[in-house]
Amino acid sequence: MRSFNFFGRLCTAFHDYPSLSKIIVVSTLSSGSLIAYSEANTNNRNRGRVAHADAVASKKKKVVVLGTGWAAMTFLKNLNNCIYEVEVVSPRNFFLFTPLLPSVTCGKVEARSIVEPIHNIIRKKNIDVRYREAECTKIDPANNKIYCRATANTNSKRREEFAIDYDYLIIVNTFNTPGVEGNCHFLKEIDDAQKIRRNVIDAFEKASLPNLTEEERKKILHFVVVGGGPTGVEFATELHDFVNEDVVKLYPMVQNFVKITVLEATDHILNMFDKRITKFAEHKFGRDNIENEICTKAKGSDKTTSMPYGMVLWSTGIGPRPIVKDFMKQISQGNRRTLATDEWLRVEGVGNVYALGDCAAINQRKVMEDITEIFKKADADNSGTLTLKEFQDISNDICERYPQMQLYLKSKPVRNIFDRPSQVKGKASKESIELRIEEFKSALSEVDTQLKNLPATAQVANQQGAYLAKCFNRMEECEINPEGPTRIRGTGRHRFRPFRYRHLGQFAPLEGEQTAAQLPGDWVSIGHSSQWLWYSIYASKQVSWRTRALVVSNWIRRFIFGRDTSAI
Amino acid sequence: MRSFNFFGRLCTAFHDYPSLSKIIVVSTLSSGSLIAYSEANTNNRNRGRVAHADAVASKKKKVVVLGTGWAAMTFLKNLNNCIYEVEVVSPRNFFLFTPLLPSVTCGKVEARSIVEPIHNIIRKKNIDVRYREAECTKIDPANNKIYCRATANTNSKRREEFAIDYDYLIIVNTFNTPGVEGNCHFLKEIDDAQKIRRNVIDAFEKASLPNLTEEERKKILHFVVVGGGPTGVEFATELHDFVNEDVVKLYPMVQNFVKITVLEATDHILNMFDKRITKFAEHKFGRDNIENEICTKAKGSDKTTSMPYGMVLWSTGIGPRPIVKDFMKQISQGNRRTLATDEWLRVEGVGNVYALGDCAAINQRKVMEDITEIFKKADADNSGTLTLKEFQDISNDICERYPQMQLYLKSKPVRNIFDRPSQVKGKASKESIELRIEEFKSALSEVDTQLKNLPATAQVANQQGAYLAKCFNRMEECEINPEGPTRIRGTGRHRFRPFRYRHLGQFAPLEGEQTAAQLPGDWVSIGHSSQWLWYSIYASKQVSWRTRALVVSNWIRRFIFGRDTSAI
Repeated sequence: MRSFNFFGRLCTAFHDYPSLSKIIVVSTLSSGSLIAYSEANTNNRNRGRVAHADAVASKKKKVVVLGTGWAAMTFLKNLNNCIYEVEVVSPRNFFLFTPLLPSVTCGKVEARSIVEPIHNIIRKKNIDVRYREAECTKIDPANNKIYCRATANTNSKRREEFAIDYDYLIIVNTFNTPGVEGNCHFLKEIDDAQKIRRNVIDAFEKASLPNLTEEERKKILHFVVVGGGPTGVEFATELHDFVNEDVVKLYPMVQNFVKITVLEATDHILNMFDKRITKFAEHKFGRDNIENEICTKAKGSDKTTSMPYGMVLWSTGIGPRPIVKDFMKQISQGNRRTLATDEWLRVEGVGNVYALGDCAAINQRKVMEDITEIFKKADADNSGTLTLKEFQDISNDICERYPQMQLYLKSKPVRNIFDRPSQVKGKASKESIELRIEEFKSALSEVDTQLKNLPATAQVANQQGAYLAKCFNRMEECEINPEGPTRIRGTGRHRFRPFRYRHLGQFAPLEGEQTAAQLPGDWVSIGHSSQWLWYSIYASKQVSWRTRALVVSNWIRRFIFGRDTSAI
Repeated sequence: MRSFNFFGRLCTAFHDYPSLSKIIVVSTLSSGSLIAYSEANTNNRNRGRVAHADAVASKKKKVVVLGTGWAAMTFLKNLNNCIYEVEVVSPRNFFLFTPLLPSVTCGKVEARSIVEPIHNIIRKKNIDVRYREAECTKIDPANNKIYCRATANTNSKRREEFAIDYDYLIIVNTFNTPGVEGNCHFLKEIDDAQKIRRNVIDAFEKASLPNLTEEERKKILHFVVVGGGPTGVEFATELHDFVNEDVVKLYPMVQNFVKITVLEATDHILNMFDKRITKFAEHKFGRDNIENEICTKAKGSDKTTSMPYGMVLWSTGIGPRPIVKDFMKQISQGNRRTLATDEWLRVEGVGNVYALGDCAAINQRKVMEDITEIFKKADADNSGTLTLKEFQDISNDICERYPQMQLYLKSKPVRNIFDRPSQVKGKASKESIELRIEEFKSALSEVDTQLKNLPATAQVANQQGAYLAKCFNRMEECEINPEGPTRIRGTGRHRFRPFRYRHLGQFAPLEGEQTAAQLPGDWVSIGHSSQWLWYSIYASKQVSWRTRALVVSNWIRRFIFGRDTSAI
């Protein structure tokens, strides 16, 4: 067997054909042999460990991960405790860098550049991870079992079924996209992006045919985007850039028939963004005559059916996979849209099943539900009343357990809780004040209004995956000395700190190499500079050096050669 | 409208974000801004001309090209006479570099890297070329018309039909691949290669599933190749490399179940090659236990159905498209497998229709058919007899008109024709000898045995396309002073020299970065060195700098990161 690492090959190359191999060497080095080196290293380092891991597999805790989405990937990347053996089950044998999907629709980036084979992620791990290309058909929480069906399309007629036991089950199954008829498209999977790309090119080829009326050409080249969120806006943008940069050169005779319409249910596109960004985007759309029709969702979809169109992109309205729905029924959450989990991402009512990403929603406990217990805990001397000091002693734990409390206290410092109108104010007096439970309740009555739901973004899934991996890594450790907040009901502390989302900002690419960026601390940046920021951040966020190199080379290629317009 | 050339963009980049843009600049320059520059130039140069070309379109001769294969592409690239307006009709809006198809099947090269959008080729032309993404459904030679149907899959139900008139029709329609059931595949189009690639990956995923017997795994991982020609052998090779280089890392548990079988009808694989190559390849296959079963085609196909297999690649047996078949019937060539053309690539019996590539076969005229006329022409003084001198005067024309004559005379120099056993030999006498027609006939009776058919390779199509373009470019010129050989029947000379194929050698990649090369002058080279030769030649043969850059970067990427195994 030949040596597989890059330098091994290089040597043979040298040996066989000095002059030519030199050329290769130069170009190879210039295009990142360092990367290769680091990659090669990890492999060698880990091979041994895997072997060892296999040996002790028997005593291990079995973790089954459903899906290969964002959360699954970060979980796998961060998990490094050898006591687990992991089995990943997903019909998709690669991780997909979803934020760049819109770029694929018009050939700015190649599909292959934003996917990383799960095997590449797995084989770099020092723990025992297996991947099964299969679809989970049923979850049986009672017996800690899942049932799967092979999806790989081989020539065997019967589709094999098999079961997998688990100690911990992690559901990161992303939403699925209901099939839509005609030329309607969703943009969640790589196939969607590729289909859209083919359709866009085909539309221009079709419109270039000789025997068409002007109306027909206009119809064919009318692209409708339903939903003015980042995805929808970005697609409209990519399309507009494609028309301006490449169509003018390749299909000059039809460029004037192109029309792009964005249908939005709320009052504004990008309504989850800062008003400044929304205004800028809408203004820009106006100038580039991308039509931007505001209408109720119902009316919107009427419109799309009543207006002649060549293609529709549906960037809204997706639902959970049947398997998840079915599981929700079993655990009597059937009436919900997403799986309800506690603050530690455990599915409520099922101890050893976790749910992450956009198929789950954290069900943050309300302060008012636990107010009596909180009061009891706080009242250290069981005097039945609460002093400022007693409250301050426990407030950190409370804030950690109930994030809304933290936000509330920011807006309304602790001491004020201890203000009573019925009383003469004075610094000294505060210390001596003692709150009774009713007063405590009324002081905090507003607190739960601070509760927020997390958006269904890659960023959230990403942080959840990393968080859960950290928990799993330190499971035994934290059993012994827990690091979480004090238990309000019962004694002792929680094992882990609850999951806390940190918003790192958001991008909304607008056409013409410009991007709107909303960053923490209410910093808004719009224009070319934030486009460069976008490039650098998206490049740095790539899961592997391989995809990073590919994505960057795609961007460079587009700079030089423009987009690839072959209809494949 | 913004400026589209690379340097324009670069400037804005600089202006907006000095530091970052510098990085891009460096990497871009290092990856071929020169290319970009040259590309950019051609565009600017040509834009003007196209406009001009449109203006005078009316008086132009209309050339319709069916297909976007090798011959079509080289024809388009070499055609540069403004008196033509060209319309290209093909369901495929890109040119495909077929020799690299096998490399796509296992992810050594990406599909997109070996296709060039036809629009990129067109817009660099200084003459008026249009492309229609449509399928030709009928050729009507009587009225110089073809009928087409749009193929672009838009959401309009009816598939538009339209007709195109032509002055000259050029058929470069490649063979089509009959659909085969189950996991059988051909390897002629890019979709085939992509399907095969997905199937190969899927096979390994499938075989990695838990609930399978050893037999099942063996069956799934048994790859059968029907046909031991270059394509079949190269696929087997790619697959074997893939298993050795990547599967061992990514699917270690199943690598031992893989089996590759090549079924060959004749006695040897690569039988069109030099015996040395065949022997080496067979030996290598033996060592790498790629099974290589020799059997009659009939038995072969029995075998493939009777032996358990996961996937079959059919690298033999393809037929012409229905449209061509139908056309052949119209011009009473219905009994043939391919269109018969004369030595100038004109379809026999139809003056203004040309056929190139593997849908056509040149019907070389036999010397014996024209022997009497040849004799008459040669007999300058109408003496009824032929002297050596008379013969020599015309022999060049004859050799050009009848290539077999040239080969014949090589083996048997002219003077010998004038040897008569019945005569006393002597140098002086030769001059005086006069051949009678019967003697002339008998002397040349063997000549037509030298006739050869051309192989259906990209190389042939390539040269034919270039040849035909040259003819079209100099059409009027050669009307006035023809450059072809003397007409044997009738007076004057032929307009053009007949097409003559020059064999530039052939490659047969064998696994492990080795290639067998058979080059002109009976030079055979096997091993790593010819692999480098292969790399450099295939890189240089790319149609555009774009694809060249992509293919090379793919090769480098594989050196560094190995193949991409995501099942998309």
